[in-house]
Order: sequence, then C-alpha cells, then structure tokens
Amino acid sequence: MNDEPLSGGPVSSDIIADLAAASRILAAQGVVDAYGHVSQRHPDAPERYLMSRSMAPALVTPYDIMEYNLDNEACDANGRGSFLERFIHGEIYKARPDINSVVHSHSPSVIPFGLVDVKMQAMFHNAAFLAGGVPVFDISKKFGATDMLVSDGDKGVAFAECMGIKDIALMRAHGSVACGPTLQVAVFRAILTEVNARVQHWTVALSDGGKIAALDDEEGVLADGPNKGAALRGWELWRKDVRDKTNW
Amino acid sequence: MNDEPLSGGPVSSDIIADLAAASRILAAQGVVDAYGHVSQRHPDAPERYLMSRSMAPALVTPYDIMEYNLDNEACDANGRGSFLERFIHGEIYKARPDINSVVHSHSPSVIPFGLVDVKMQAMFHNAAFLAGGVPVFDISKKFGATDMLVSDGDKGVAFAECMGIKDIALMRAHGSVACGPTLQVAVFRAILTEVNARVQHWTVALSDGGKIAALDDEEGVLADGPNKGAALRGWELWRKDVRDKTNW
Amino acid sequence: MNDEPLSGGPVSSDIIADLAAASRILAAQGVVDAYGHVSQRHPDAPERYLMSRSMAPALVTPYDIMEYNLDNEACDANGRGSFLERFIHGEIYKARPDINSVVHSHSPSVIPFGLVDVKMQAMFHNAAFLAGGVPVFDISKKFGATDMLVSDGDKGVAFAECMGIKDIALMRAHGSVACGPTLQVAVFRAILTEVNARVQHWTVALSDGGKIAALDDEEGVLADGPNKGAALRGWELWRKDVRDKTNW
Amino acid sequence: MNDEPLSGGPVSSDIIADLAAASRILAAQGVVDAYGHVSQRHPDAPERYLMSRSMAPALVTPYDIMEYNLDNEACDANGRGSFLERFIHGEIYKARPDINSVVHSHSPSVIPFGLVDVKMQAMFHNAAFLAGGVPVFDISKKFGATDMLVSDGDKGVAFAECMGIKDIALMRAHGSVACGPTLQVAVFRAILTEVNARVQHWTVALSDGGKIAALDDEEGVLADGPNKGAALRGWELWRKDVRDKTNW
Repeated sequence: MNDEPLSGGPVSSDIIADLAAASRILAAQGVVDAYGHVSQRHPDAPERYLMSRSMAPALVTPYDIMEYNLDNEACDANGRGSFLERFIHGEIYKARPDINSVVHSHSPSVIPFGLVDVKMQAMFHNAAFLAGGVPVFDISKKFGATDMLVSDGDKGVAFAECMGIKDIALMRAHGSVACGPTLQVAVFRAILTEVNARVQHWTVALSDGGKIAALDDEEGVLADGPNKGAALRGWELWRKDVRDKTNW
Repeated sequence: MNDEPLSGGPVSSDIIADLAAASRILAAQGVVDAYGHVSQRHPDAPERYLMSRSMAPALVTPYDIMEYNLDNEACDANGRGSFLERFIHGEIYKARPDINSVVHSHSPSVIPFGLVDVKMQAMFHNAAFLAGGVPVFDISKKFGATDMLVSDGDKGVAFAECMGIKDIALMRAHGSVACGPTLQVAVFRAILTEVNARVQHWTVALSDGGKIAALDDEEGVLADGPNKGAALRGWELWRKDVRDKTNW
Repeated sequence: MNDEPLSGGPVSSDIIADLAAASRILAAQGVVDAYGHVSQRHPDAPERYLMSRSMAPALVTPYDIMEYNLDNEACDANGRGSFLERFIHGEIYKARPDINSVVHSHSPSVIPFGLVDVKMQAMFHNAAFLAGGVPVFDISKKFGATDMLVSDGDKGVAFAECMGIKDIALMRAHGSVACGPTLQVAVFRAILTEVNARVQHWTVALSDGGKIAALDDEEGVLADGPNKGAALRGWELWRKDVRDKTNW
Repeated sequence: MNDEPLSGGPVSSDIIADLAAASRILAAQGVVDAYGHVSQRHPDAPERYLMSRSMAPALVTPYDIMEYNLDNEACDANGRGSFLERFIHGEIYKARPDINSVVHSHSPSVIPFGLVDVKMQAMFHNAAFLAGGVPVFDISKKFGATDMLVSDGDKGVAFAECMGIKDIALMRAHGSVACGPTLQVAVFRAILTEVNARVQHWTVALSDGGKIAALDDEEGVLADGPNKGAALRGWELWRKDVRDKTNW
C-alpha cells in the first residue's frame, strides 16, 4: 500500500545528472548558497517534475533527485525530505506549459529589488529576458503576516499568478524565481539575473537619478533570441566544472 | 597547587570537533578573518564554556579548544593564551541562560551599521532574527576613551546589558556578536548577519531615502521558526567542507 | 573546391599558445565570463587575424585558434563555429593598422558607464590609456532596435568609426572593447579597464558630486609610457598561472 | 671593479624568506595585484634595505630578494632589474629611523580616497593607526605633469615629507604606502588599510552625509597598542598559507 502518485516513467541518467549538476552550477556561480532549488519537468510526463531532496545545492548528486506530481507530492520519497517551497515549482508547471525548468534562489544582489520601489531592468543583452518587466510578489498582500515561505498550494498559485506570463518574479524580503523552456536556459537566466542585479546597483548609483539607457522592450525581444545559444555555451563551461569534480 | 577553576567534566570529541570546525566555517564564509572567536556552553555544566586558545580561527583544531568558567578563567590553560575579549562570552552566558553559543566577529559589511544612525533590519526571511532590532554598544558611553576591546568583566557586563533580550548586538567601531541556542544556530546567524548587511547596503542605496519593505516584527517571529532547520542544512554543507580538508 | 580565403601562413606555436592563454587569463581576471573574445593580428600577414572558435574563453586551447581575413571569413573552419561578433575584430584591424590585438568583454563593472551620462576617466596611472576619453557606441543610433550584437560588417564599421583613434570604446547595454599594439598590452588594458571601473564606482559615490582628481590628458600620455613594461610584468604572472594548469 | 655599494652583511635565511613571503601574503590578501612592493630595513645595517627585484609580488622567492643602500642603489644586482619606485622606500628609511618596513600598493578600494575630498578615517580598532590622519601626496603640486611615479630621489623626498610623522600616505591617482616598525606590522597595516577602505565606502554611503562615529584621536592611540599582537596573530595565519604552498 503506497499513497504516493505514480511515476511518469524512467528518465535517462544523463538528464538526471544534468539536473544534479545544475544545483552545483548555481552554487558555484553564487546564485544559491546553502539554500535554493532547481527543478525540471519530466521529459515524458508533463504532469511530473524532478527536483532534489531537501539539501544544500552544492552537495546534490544524481541519487538525490526525486520525482513529484504537480500537486508537489513525491512519487518516490523513500524517506527523503522535500523542500518546504516545492509548491513554487508545481504551480508554475501547472500554470505555464511553456516552462520546463524553474530556479528559486536568494541571491543577495537580487533581494533589494524586491524591497524598494525600483524596477529591475535589462542592463545588457545577455539579460534581455528581464526587459519585459519583473513582477514582485508580496506574500503579505493576500496572506498577511507569514513565515514568508511559499509553502502550500494556495501560496504557490498566488505566486504563479503574480508571475503571469513573465519568466521571472521577485519575492518581497525573500528571493526570486527564474524559469525557462529548458534546464539550460533557466540556469542561464538565474545566473544572468544575479549579474544584472549587480550591474544595475552600480548603474543606479552612477546615474544619480538620471536616465539609464537599458534595453527597451523591442531590443529585449530581439536580444533574447541569441541568448538560447549563449545559454548552451555557458552550460558547456559550467557543466564541465562539475564533471571535473564529480566524474558524473 | 593549581588556582584554575575545576572543569565541568569531559566533553565528547564530536562536540569539540564541531566547535573547532565552527571557527573554520566562519573564516571560510568571510565572517571572521584572522580575528574573531566562537564559543559554546559546556553541554553538562552550564557554568562553563568552551572556546579555542587565542589564534586565527582558520587554524583552530580540536586540540586548541579550552574550557573557561563564566568569570572567563581558563580551567586547563597549559600555557595556552586566551582571547583578550573572552569576557564577551562569559558575561553573555551569565546573563542569558537561553544562549548556548556566541560568535564575535569584525565582518567589514557589518561594521558600518555600528558607525552611523541607520538601524540594521531583516532584509529577508533567513535573517529574520534581526527583525526584533539590533542594539549598538558604544563602549565610550560608560568607559570613555579605550582601546575599544571588551577586555574585562565590567565591559562584558555592560555589553551584555546593551544586548539585553536580543540575540545580536553591534559594537561601535569594532564589530558584532551573534548568539543562539545551539552552535549551529549561532553560526548560521553570524553568517546571515553578514549576508544581510551586504543586502541592506545595496537596498539602502537603491531606495534613495524611500521605503524599504523589510520583515516587520510579526513576520520576523514567524520566519525565524523555519530557520532552525535552515541552520542545520547550512551546517551540513559547511561542516562537510571542513571535514574534507581536515579529516576531523 | 574551397571558398575559404587563403591563410596568411603558419604561425609559431608559442604565439598560438599565448593567444589561447589570453582567453583563459581574461576569464581568470574576471574580465570575461562564459562570453567574450580576444584576437591577435597575424604576425606575418596584416590582412589576417587569429581568434578562437566560438566557445567559453576559459576552455580555449591552442587547437581552438582559427584564422580569419579582415572580412571575418574563416580560413580554416573545419566545421568549427565562429563568434557572431567577430566583425568587431576585422573592422578594427582594417581601420587601425596600429592595433594588433582586440579584446571584447561584458565585465559587469564596465557596463554601467555605457548606460548613463558619466564618462569613464583614468582613476590611476595603470589605467592611463583611458585618460584620452572613452567613446560609447549606441547601436540604436544607426541601426534602430537590434539584438545589440555587432554581427555584420556594417555594424563593425560603425563601431570602429565610433572608437576612432582611441584604443577603447564602450557599447551601450552590451560591453566594451579594449585594443593595443600587442596581445600583452591589449590584455593588460582590458584588465585595467575592469579595475578602473570598480575604482571609479567607489570614487563617484565618495565624491558625492564633488571634484575627482583623475589623470588629466597630459598625465595620461606620460603615465601610459611605463605601462608597456607593466603589461609585461602582469603577463609574466598571469601566463604562468595558465601554464601551471595546462602545460602549454 | 664594481661601483655597487657595499652590502650591510649577511641576513638570516628566515628573514629573507619572511620578506619574500610578505609579497605573496599581500597578493593573496588583495592588497597588491601584479604590481606593488614590500621592503624591510637590513636588520644589522640601518643604511641598507632589502626588497625583491622588479617582478609580480605573487611570484617572489627568497632568491629574488636584493639589497639596496638608502640612495636606492642595488648592492648585488647581478643583472636583476629594480622597481622604478624604489625611491619611496629609501627616502622613507632616511627620514624615519623608527620605520623598518614599507609596503607600496594600488589597492582599488584605497585609490578613491586620494582622488576626492574625503579623508580616510579609522572605521574600527584594527585600523587604529589611521586615526591620526592620512595625508594625500599630489605629485603634480611640485613636479607638474608626470607619469605619476615616485621614480627618483627628489620625488621620494617630497613623498616622505608629505607623509611626515604618519605611518601612511596616499598618492593621488596612484596608490598608497603603509609603514611599520616591523615587517609584520607593516603588512598588517597594509591589509587593514584595504579593509578599512571598503568599510568606509559602505559607511559613507550609509551615512548619507550624517555623522560617522569613527575612532577619535585618543581611541586611535589606545587601540593601536593591541594591534601589535593582532599583527602577529594574522602573520601566523598568512605565513602558514605561503609555507604550505612553497615549502619555504
């Protein structure tokens, strides 16, 4: 007798290893520290997704990858713990069929843009996906005083609604979520969001209230195209670093 | 004939190794440099505490851990030197039975909040323990011009009084102290204080005098709950790094 | 039948290895990340230049170095991909016979100076080559909304015209290009541009609108002289780091 | 026939190794990059000093240490090149018998304080030696437009006069010099100057024009006392790092 949902079927060891590597890449690039998580939709079963058990991203191995249904119930827990905030992932996969990978992080450079009335903009072409606007989710608007965590389905739904058709949203006094059609693009976007935040801090200070010639909407759309290729070039570098250290 | 106070009894080698590792963790995380110290209350004798001899935190080994009474007298000096500022530790343990671990550091990002009239606030959920307010101890108020060090019992008492019921206090033109009910929580809080300081510098600059939507008091209390678990997840990562390098 | 342009002739393996090492040096110094490129004019054929295939700079080996004519056509592709923005390099080599090496990068600290109305100045003697002024290329002035990339000859010509007689130009919402008479000087200048940008961010903030005693024009010319020697001293250090890791 | 000045006599290999290690320590701590130098007065001959040949500090070995008289002439060149700015060292040793070690660097965080009208102050006890005031040497005042280098005796004299009775001075659009009675104290002070600069950048930004409760003069004198011990504790850590990598 097992109340766990059925698995969406076996996944190739390469995909599992890449997802485990993504956790370590995000840690190595300073996007996550001991916290944060990355998931990927099941390649053959769109109603399932893959994510590590609850642990520090820098330690994840392929053996730590679990499978969840979109209600965020583990298919194969085997006593392994789940992230409290897995509801972010499931609700985004439900709401957005075009998204196949989700990164949640607390990058120190990004958090400020969720705390003040300054919008994150795309400071350069590699961060073009930000040009369309970056929503900020304030959990207190709907849920009052909380522990700030997106730790149940209702909060996950509210977060996904706030993100809407964008591929990123910030969370007030908490962190951010970056998404993409593939694992490689989501990882690239999470890394570039962190870099863009640092560039924007410098730029805002330098501008002293003057104009900032960020990407406009049209440039944002055009510049996002070549970033699919850029994501793969970055992935080649970052993935190799993990392989050199782990042999998987 | 030995005037040293009696020991509180033997302590397991795991606890000693963890305390030595905590020094190295704080150095690896940029909380301490060649200076600063971390202590832990004796697990069986609340009137005793454990701390390394006077040395750089990154070099501490289990053999460097000494035992002190709450008057900050070494039980087992054997010629080993003591930190000039051990009085911070003993006086906090006297005043606050709920605190079992204390970290003192001079993190560059934190010092500014002890020098100007801007209060440190909790910028995100992982730093929730800051939401209750962060006192600043100005040693000159009671002691006039000094070498700035909390280097005797009177100064230790004054510092502990300034900290009051909080688990953190800054020291003007010097550094800060973060505390917790366990070693793991105190280390987590010291690390998150440093991260929060960096986030707040960015946020204050970005806000340009506008509102900062930091955690409010109620959110601070609620968000601090899950941080006990977060502290253990971070510890698992940081402790492993030390073990990989030292084999203890 | 091969439509590829003729090679300018064989190049010594030392020169090829140094150019490959330059990519890794720029990555190690934080000037480039997974993106950016460095080229060198062919030592015997001024109408040809050498540059790696399209890949992350930190991974470049001597086997990845390709040869191009000044119309940016590969002489020896062998199926290897080319950087989309190689047109930056060819058009600079056409316009500027005194330049023999070009670095293109997206250093986060440098990008802000292409977004706001604050000119980059030489903050110290090692960055003296900046004292003559740093033009900013806004691709939208001539080409309207684009993907921001200098990805064809017309855009390359426009960029080279904007740079004019300087050895550096920034690109709005994109990055920068630093040049020199030798590979070593171009690499030194790219590194120093990044350092200077960080110094200038701190200086502008500290000045609070007051005067900044940067190098003036005459000091800039005089101080640039000893930098040829400084470039070689830096190269000795940085090149050794690559050799220690690669054995080439 | 040799016009070189006489040596002050043999120096123990430990002292030579420590001086070579100091170069590497300063590089590891981010005080110097490929440039900058540290010297020590000859232990038995106050009219001589020891310094490496002209090279990147991170590569210095004991075999690179040379001896100079106070007119900055090498006693034992053997074809080895000398730093262009060795005149800083000789003229300080002439003017200040109490100084036995000198560090010259271009730390990016320190340079801004030589470019604007904001004085460096002591932000915390470990940087107490800054509390007495930090002069800024503007080479153009006496020498007009130059290459900014203190590259002859006249410029060295002018710099030493500007520094006066302090143990530190900044150089406009160039760098800084930190001194001490011992090698260990000079290295400590150079490192702490760099840290203090970063703390002060954050503090000035946070203060937004308000009061900064830096060390006052009296606190500066009192706090500098324990820093002699702190310098040795830091040295123990930093020196070990070099020894672990070099076996000297």
